[in-house]
Amino acid sequence: MIINKIEVFVCCPGRNFVTVKVTTSEGVYGVGDATVNGREQAVVTLLEEHIIPCLIGRNAHDIEDIWQYLYRGVYWRKGPINMAAVAAIDMALWDIKGKVAGLPVYQLLGGKSRKGVTLYAHANGENIEHTLDNAEKHVAAGFKAVRLQSAIPGLAVTYGVLGDKKDYFEMQGSRPLPPEEAWSTQKYFNMIVDLFERARSRLGNEVQLVHDVHSRLTPIESARLGKLLEPYNLMFLEDASMAENQENYKLIRQHTTTPLAIGETYNTIWDCKDLIQNQLIDYIRVAATHAGGITALRRIADFASIFNVKTAPHGAPDLSPICFAAHMHLNTWAPNFGVQEFVGFGDQNLRQIFQHRTEIVDGMAYLSDAPGLGIEFDEEAAKAFPYKRSYLPVSRLEDGTMWNW
Amino acid sequence: MIINKIEVFVCCPGRNFVTVKVTTSEGVYGVGDATVNGREQAVVTLLEEHIIPCLIGRNAHDIEDIWQYLYRGVYWRKGPINMAAVAAIDMALWDIKGKVAGLPVYQLLGGKSRKGVTLYAHANGENIEHTLDNAEKHVAAGFKAVRLQSAIPGLAVTYGVLGDKKDYFEMQGSRPLPPEEAWSTQKYFNMIVDLFERARSRLGNEVQLVHDVHSRLTPIESARLGKLLEPYNLMFLEDASMAENQENYKLIRQHTTTPLAIGETYNTIWDCKDLIQNQLIDYIRVAATHAGGITALRRIADFASIFNVKTAPHGAPDLSPICFAAHMHLNTWAPNFGVQEFVGFGDQNLRQIFQHRTEIVDGMAYLSDAPGLGIEFDEEAAKAFPYKRSYLPVSRLEDGTMWNW
Amino acid sequence: MIINKIEVFVCCPGRNFVTVKVTTSEGVYGVGDATVNGREQAVVTLLEEHIIPCLIGRNAHDIEDIWQYLYRGVYWRKGPINMAAVAAIDMALWDIKGKVAGLPVYQLLGGKSRKGVTLYAHANGENIEHTLDNAEKHVAAGFKAVRLQSAIPGLAVTYGVLGDKKDYFEMQGSRPLPPEEAWSTQKYFNMIVDLFERARSRLGNEVQLVHDVHSRLTPIESARLGKLLEPYNLMFLEDASMAENQENYKLIRQHTTTPLAIGETYNTIWDCKDLIQNQLIDYIRVAATHAGGITALRRIADFASIFNVKTAPHGAPDLSPICFAAHMHLNTWAPNFGVQEFVGFGDQNLRQIFQHRTEIVDGMAYLSDAPGLGIEFDEEAAKAFPYKRSYLPVSRLEDGTMWNW
Amino acid sequence: MIINKIEVFVCCPGRNFVTVKVTTSEGVYGVGDATVNGREQAVVTLLEEHIIPCLIGRNAHDIEDIWQYLYRGVYWRKGPINMAAVAAIDMALWDIKGKVAGLPVYQLLGGKSRKGVTLYAHANGENIEHTLDNAEKHVAAGFKAVRLQSAIPGLAVTYGVLGDKKDYFEMQGSRPLPPEEAWSTQKYFNMIVDLFERARSRLGNEVQLVHDVHSRLTPIESARLGKLLEPYNLMFLEDASMAENQENYKLIRQHTTTPLAIGETYNTIWDCKDLIQNQLIDYIRVAATHAGGITALRRIADFASIFNVKTAPHGAPDLSPICFAAHMHLNTWAPNFGVQEFVGFGDQNLRQIFQHRTEIVDGMAYLSDAPGLGIEFDEEAAKAFPYKRSYLPVSRLEDGTMWNW
Repeated sequence: MIINKIEVFVCCPGRNFVTVKVTTSEGVYGVGDATVNGREQAVVTLLEEHIIPCLIGRNAHDIEDIWQYLYRGVYWRKGPINMAAVAAIDMALWDIKGKVAGLPVYQLLGGKSRKGVTLYAHANGENIEHTLDNAEKHVAAGFKAVRLQSAIPGLAVTYGVLGDKKDYFEMQGSRPLPPEEAWSTQKYFNMIVDLFERARSRLGNEVQLVHDVHSRLTPIESARLGKLLEPYNLMFLEDASMAENQENYKLIRQHTTTPLAIGETYNTIWDCKDLIQNQLIDYIRVAATHAGGITALRRIADFASIFNVKTAPHGAPDLSPICFAAHMHLNTWAPNFGVQEFVGFGDQNLRQIFQHRTEIVDGMAYLSDAPGLGIEFDEEAAKAFPYKRSYLPVSRLEDGTMWNW
Repeated sequence: MIINKIEVFVCCPGRNFVTVKVTTSEGVYGVGDATVNGREQAVVTLLEEHIIPCLIGRNAHDIEDIWQYLYRGVYWRKGPINMAAVAAIDMALWDIKGKVAGLPVYQLLGGKSRKGVTLYAHANGENIEHTLDNAEKHVAAGFKAVRLQSAIPGLAVTYGVLGDKKDYFEMQGSRPLPPEEAWSTQKYFNMIVDLFERARSRLGNEVQLVHDVHSRLTPIESARLGKLLEPYNLMFLEDASMAENQENYKLIRQHTTTPLAIGETYNTIWDCKDLIQNQLIDYIRVAATHAGGITALRRIADFASIFNVKTAPHGAPDLSPICFAAHMHLNTWAPNFGVQEFVGFGDQNLRQIFQHRTEIVDGMAYLSDAPGLGIEFDEEAAKAFPYKRSYLPVSRLEDGTMWNW
Repeated sequence: MIINKIEVFVCCPGRNFVTVKVTTSEGVYGVGDATVNGREQAVVTLLEEHIIPCLIGRNAHDIEDIWQYLYRGVYWRKGPINMAAVAAIDMALWDIKGKVAGLPVYQLLGGKSRKGVTLYAHANGENIEHTLDNAEKHVAAGFKAVRLQSAIPGLAVTYGVLGDKKDYFEMQGSRPLPPEEAWSTQKYFNMIVDLFERARSRLGNEVQLVHDVHSRLTPIESARLGKLLEPYNLMFLEDASMAENQENYKLIRQHTTTPLAIGETYNTIWDCKDLIQNQLIDYIRVAATHAGGITALRRIADFASIFNVKTAPHGAPDLSPICFAAHMHLNTWAPNFGVQEFVGFGDQNLRQIFQHRTEIVDGMAYLSDAPGLGIEFDEEAAKAFPYKRSYLPVSRLEDGTMWNW
Repeated sequence: MIINKIEVFVCCPGRNFVTVKVTTSEGVYGVGDATVNGREQAVVTLLEEHIIPCLIGRNAHDIEDIWQYLYRGVYWRKGPINMAAVAAIDMALWDIKGKVAGLPVYQLLGGKSRKGVTLYAHANGENIEHTLDNAEKHVAAGFKAVRLQSAIPGLAVTYGVLGDKKDYFEMQGSRPLPPEEAWSTQKYFNMIVDLFERARSRLGNEVQLVHDVHSRLTPIESARLGKLLEPYNLMFLEDASMAENQENYKLIRQHTTTPLAIGETYNTIWDCKDLIQNQLIDYIRVAATHAGGITALRRIADFASIFNVKTAPHGAPDLSPICFAAHMHLNTWAPNFGVQEFVGFGDQNLRQIFQHRTEIVDGMAYLSDAPGLGIEFDEEAAKAFPYKRSYLPVSRLEDGTMWNW
């Protein structure tokens, strides 16, 4: 079964998505997600000019060899642009293999380890009460876990907190240049403990709570935050400090028993190996699109399981529904799956372009029994939403110093 | 002094080079190298579509802030494609600042730390004698250090050993698809010690000897090799084992006092921080183009100096002469500079496109006193050599297993 | 550009300052600060008798080589007297290079990383209320950060707490022999938590608070203090324990998330390398004058940045305005700058002798665009204030035991 | 018994020596050595202007309190200039206490732990045979241990190897500016193993052999050297690598069982604490003059004894005979004394200025039973040899890079 054709599509139903379609000599095809937010066209060029020519004519069944060919065989490994390209090819090949086998991909990974996939929803708000109003709606809808992010008094904008009046997708996808936003750790600390104290008071102790620091704190500040939040029993604190220096986490870890999660920007196991091996985190949040696909995530999940680390894949709207589908298969199989981030299935357009039958019931997600990844990419529908350059915002301290994403 | 325009050029005088030109409101301009071998067009797209729009209108003097903006300010950091784009902008801005100051860039870094820059030349050969013949020529030409690579008997091809009959540049630049080459560690070990024993016997003990393993060995094999080569007093053994897992080097290090060098594929300090901090290597070989430019290399050099690690920048023909110029400025300044890899200044075409006045005398390189980087890019001359897709070869074990680059 | 002449001046406008002036063959000159409080004349002799003779005739552009010559080239490295001499030469050479380039020194370091330099002011008082009165004045004047030091009830004198009735400069400069002052940790603990509890109650949660322990506590006492002060969210606790034994900080660090700062007595990176590398501190407070100048501080800042440690240069009146200027250039550039200690620009005499155009607006400092360091030393004005021997006080426990500075 | 007067003398009988004389109200006086080679006058100024005024009127018996007053009581601690001043005062006070008690100082330290003090002599030479000729003379004279240093073929000068035709003292004391000498590690390695192989062959296996690397090697080179010299059973390898970064020694230590010695440039226990505590060295070579006197060396010896590290005090001619006397008392007492470096008692002039009755018999040194340090400083004789500025040489690599002392 030979790879005959590989096509790359970019569409922008609110946000940009890069979709790869691999077609074989038998006519079976598969799809993969290669979206790198704000870097979409670089991935397209990498695929079309440099990667695809090397794959035409290879056996679509040789998923492992092709993965190794694209990783170990090349001089230039690693990096988000490169690993997203590898990931998309890998997902598409697993989709194909599932279709050929007539089985959902999770069956090829080893079968079902649980009835359904636990999700955590996002509750954002313009202030603490507003955030908790939204959280209550999620709890009422059956979600077992909710992420709380509230706007910070005294700052003009707080990243990721768009309130309920704006279209989340459109907002993220309509920034022709990166806006620069001010950050103040002092102002954040003046709000954050209060948010969780009141959350427990309003939401009770059953619901799992999550919070994302977006890497804005230094290690000792993260340590302090973890300690201050201990009474409120978080499921985890996400991206507490800069992702590169894994030793940071030693310091945070010695001060707090608040569980820690990180990984959405990681591209290979090498980015998280030390964190996992030294028991410095509790949840690894690597995404299939950004860390090399299903082949790579299966390995990372297996490695994490050895050290009691659970998976909690990234699930923000910068990943296309194809990546979400890949996560669903991994989540359904992985013995050490923890929780899946979830921001909804998007609007009508998005659901038209990426068609699937995954169902959400009481805050749990359930895959259909469709073979392969179980997701269809509607090329025609996608054409109506051409690529539109857009950026994430950039963060500066109040004195103008460039600050961490 | 505002950034008015940033242009990207790709030319292929034998090999592909990606050149960035930044022009300011005052008309002063600077150039940088963004070449990522086999991934050239992806860097071009990244620059043109995603990075350049964010830089127009910024102050060209704010090199540090622009570097941080492109690294810390973005969600997607790291990786060769991304860091090469950052590097090219950074080099061009230092070129501009030097021109504005009327000083060579090394003066801005802190001035001259040595009379000249020691080079090591490449001696490749179809067999041991042929390799040593070539080495003798380099020694006779005044080189104080030579890298020895000999074809491995029993293997059809040995990477990096093209012999003296082929044009080095053209060969590397003319592979429309990646050839797949067989590797045998056993056959390599049957040759390698002999090469160095005979080298010392023919070349004597004054000349410094280097060898590049191209990451083909496992850690314990590298440890063995280092130990076997101890009697021949190498300057360093390069890329002894896979670059990602820095802990590999603990194993190698505990077995041998043969000095170790690595780094040409690293893209940030995070890729080598642990190796340096734990005294696991002796030379750090990061290249300005692939590890974020002069701003980043200055930091890595300084970091390395604290741990007695010397710099030995990559100098293969996959870097354009602009990167070599950037290295020359760093090498002239860095108190812990060790040695610069050098494969010649290329043919007439290359020297016409990239014009500079660096001189080689007795195996030492000397910068001119031109302000900035001291290198001119001839856009017109470049047009005659359009981009041509080309790849590095890929390595497999004799049973077909994909093997390390 | 040859070094023709190096002169050393000592003046005492309230306190003693040692100023070095380097003049080149082209007539360009630069100034540096070599003040070591209470050891001024030893630095003068070291410079005039032992260091200056070796520098005449060298190229003023070779800053790095001269720094290495004075550090690595000598048998006797390290120590405050030695490193202050090195520092003054280094500052003067950067001043010269900036003038030659026609650029402020921060431009040579990499350009501007922020709009302005955040300062922290000193609020001292005879009792808690008095201290907080002074703190309120600073907050009203726009300062974003304030250091609180209050006299300790039951002790005759508390170092660094001179109240508002005495001239800070004169007091420090008029001790012909070192007074001996009693210290009681018990009495200190009886006051200190109260100070910060009342500070947060009066000043609110927006202002950043700092406290200096002046190394008077044992490590476990510092650990206890850090823990007790956690509810008041300090920006940092300074000099919590003896500076020499870096392992002390492991103990402190494991008990508290109160951020830690140290470094004003350090003379080289070797004094703080382990503290930084092991993530034991959050702010490194080395001063350009006492730790080897701009060349050395650039390296320390860069090293610290890798470990998320911010710079917070010493800024007490034992440093001359030339050192403050050097800090301003480093602070304007360093991507990991945190905060600058600030005690005002002194009286009319001081401002006449050391002329500059740095402006303070709303607790932020802004450099002028003058080339070099942007500070002039008025030799004539200095003559009116000849050197006067003076000492810092000495500390003993109440039973007479000699205690830590 | 009050300190009435403290005088400082500088004389240059071949080399410069700084001598401190403390006189008490009872007329008893003591002497100490404050010589810092090439920095002599800075120590004089530090003492006369800044330290002595604080000591007049104190009780000469309070040695410990005065030591703490000068170390812990001051803001500016550490460094060679400062600690030499402290050391000279401390030695003089022990001299006084011994005289008051009518006992040699070693009796006050705890009495005699051995019959005599083992010395190691210096054998230098213009080539290997010449070096071994000199070594044989020492062995014939009864020395049990000899240090071997041979000129390096291909280098113009080799530090510390003056041959037998020059006056060692005069040479070192007559360099009005520091000469710059070239260093080549490659050339050194081409000689050094041969030196020791032939040494064992000519001198046999009874004599202890020592070698001083003078910090010219990187850590991995030192590791290699230690390994290569293992067959020749050295007593120790001295100053194998840079003194500041104590972690260097971990690397050296893991590769070789050649015993390691370091310490002559250290000024406090903080400079060697980690080396000793982590069992990274075998001999600690701190000198009384440069590391704070008898009080400080007693503590360092005691600390070292806990970790099985022996003392081997520095004994080059940059220390005055007063320091040698102090060492003799420490060596006679210290239970963990190892060996004392010894270069002879100098010429007639030196022996006239510094009079003592220490005897050398069969390579062992024996103190007389004179009270105190047992050494007299002849002020009148000293006057005939006024201070003369002189420097140690400076070391550069062959490409001009400043290299380690």
